[in-house]
Amino acid sequence: MKPVLAITIGDFNGIGPEVALKAAANSALRAKCTPLLVGPLNVFEHTRTRLKLKVKLQKAAAMLPQQSSVIPVMDVGDGIGADVDYGKPTRASGRSAGVAIEAAVKLCLAGKAAAMVTAPASKEALNLAGYNFPGQTEMITLLSRSSKVAMMLVSKDLRVGLVTIHVPVRSIAEHVTAEKIVEKMGVILESLKRDFRISDPTLAVLGLNPHAGEHGVIGNEEQSIILPALEQARARGIKAEGPFSADGFFGDKTFRRFDAVVAMYHDQGLIPLKMHSFGKAVNFSAGLTIIRTSPDHGTAYDIAGKGKARLDSMLEAMKLALQIARNRYD
Amino acid sequence: MKPVLAITIGDFNGIGPEVALKAAANSALRAKCTPLLVGPLNVFEHTRTRLKLKVKLQKAAAMLPQQSSVIPVMDVGDGIGADVDYGKPTRASGRSAGVAIEAAVKLCLAGKAAAMVTAPASKEALNLAGYNFPGQTEMITLLSRSSKVAMMLVSKDLRVGLVTIHVPVRSIAEHVTAEKIVEKMGVILESLKRDFRISDPTLAVLGLNPHAGEHGVIGNEEQSIILPALEQARARGIKAEGPFSADGFFGDKTFRRFDAVVAMYHDQGLIPLKMHSFGKAVNFSAGLTIIRTSPDHGTAYDIAGKGKARLDSMLEAMKLALQIARNRYD
Repeated sequence: MKPVLAITIGDFNGIGPEVALKAAANSALRAKCTPLLVGPLNVFEHTRTRLKLKVKLQKAAAMLPQQSSVIPVMDVGDGIGADVDYGKPTRASGRSAGVAIEAAVKLCLAGKAAAMVTAPASKEALNLAGYNFPGQTEMITLLSRSSKVAMMLVSKDLRVGLVTIHVPVRSIAEHVTAEKIVEKMGVILESLKRDFRISDPTLAVLGLNPHAGEHGVIGNEEQSIILPALEQARARGIKAEGPFSADGFFGDKTFRRFDAVVAMYHDQGLIPLKMHSFGKAVNFSAGLTIIRTSPDHGTAYDIAGKGKARLDSMLEAMKLALQIARNRYD
Repeated sequence: MKPVLAITIGDFNGIGPEVALKAAANSALRAKCTPLLVGPLNVFEHTRTRLKLKVKLQKAAAMLPQQSSVIPVMDVGDGIGADVDYGKPTRASGRSAGVAIEAAVKLCLAGKAAAMVTAPASKEALNLAGYNFPGQTEMITLLSRSSKVAMMLVSKDLRVGLVTIHVPVRSIAEHVTAEKIVEKMGVILESLKRDFRISDPTLAVLGLNPHAGEHGVIGNEEQSIILPALEQARARGIKAEGPFSADGFFGDKTFRRFDAVVAMYHDQGLIPLKMHSFGKAVNFSAGLTIIRTSPDHGTAYDIAGKGKARLDSMLEAMKLALQIARNRYD
């Protein structure tokens, strides 16, 4: 039996339903898994019609169609075509996105899906609908009753894990603690072993400040927090080097020597990741009780409903979810 | 008469003297300018001997040798070969670097040099020697009696200007003010016109926070500071767009539509710049009364004295300095 991949609708005012539908219809992937769309069937139908996609949708029954050309939809959340308002976060789009995430997590927890892949949602819309999380990752961590998570961005030859995720720059420094760095390093290391089957991984840890602080001349967190964290991690048997000056580290491609890079904050990790492999990288929530991936792009409100969304990252996200499921469970 | 380029020694325990000497000896560049090395002649002689460079050095007299194969050295600062201690910042290396910067700035202010190019110095060593500046840029700004400066990184198809430079991450947000953004935008715009001869430049301004704050969900500086700064700048006739989410902006190469990118902090601008053009980018201090460039790399203590330093960025720095001198003064 092929593994089931739960694919959430994301924000229906963005490119969420488009990439979810198109990815679910991809025949190469359907040879390896059964995609299960999660979200309002009505909205998926609206997208299908609007974009003239030649697929059939069907409300999912107890038994999913394993061979057929029909794409099953777990019909959750409110929404009809008239609710769609391309280009902006609304309470309706946020609510639909949130309900789909809840349902997909339940499918994974119950073992009805091997993994979930989330189409891009809008934090702003989720917040309007009362889902007050900084991002999908934090929401899924809570819903899946996971005690730890590290947001990882994965591309062919660069994996980046984040110590802080959706934190304003103003607050980054106070969120970077030795305890948290060691915890994230542990989560990333375990994931490299369990999810990526790397037997003896080595981590690179970036500094927080410009030039990694230059020995305390530009901030002291490298001395007071990051170096002690590296020592603690090494004492636990984690192989790691650092702290590296982020600009030079990515500029001269030092990252190629490591199995993963631990970045202190969002843009420090995501700017180089996206420059390195834009549209091909996958967001993976390491350390969860379940498996969750998502594309590396956002809702792309500016091209919503136009049929212009690129599918690469969504397809990579599905492939990676399947690969991790095999590595973890087979 | 060829223009004189003052080239400072940088940190003599790093690759400073090596790249300065080799760049000064480059025949293609010597056809266009007269390089004048600035630093202790004894230390340059030590480097020359150690690296077996086939050039002749000579204490600079009132008249610089315009045609000869001899490289003139303005013999300032203390230091003999015995003071060189490769691989670490010392008081001696910092003092020598500092004195050379002071002398080169004076040459430029007096019109005896068209521009100065600084080999990489160590902020730590400079501080040990009593030069208490966050970096060379800030020191040169003060010494050249300039009222404004914007650190710019320049490569073939990407120019990045920074709102904050060598500021610890902990303090970035408090240093990002609307006033400072508008000031830097003005400096960068004027420089694009005067130094790069771009008649009607357009600037891209990045957000401060991840996802440019997502309309206030992740920090509010985009609303409270950056958008008002953009309005003020536009009211002054500056063409500018933003704030852009930094990771996507660089990932999908939106930067190609703009003449320069205004980044809020060091790594936000330098990570993408160095990924885009490592070893080829030039650091340019826009807005100064004088012209100053430098390579995009640091002291590289790990390869100091080994003859392994790459020259690309130093040569690019000299070329850019000459180009700007022509654009500004011809």
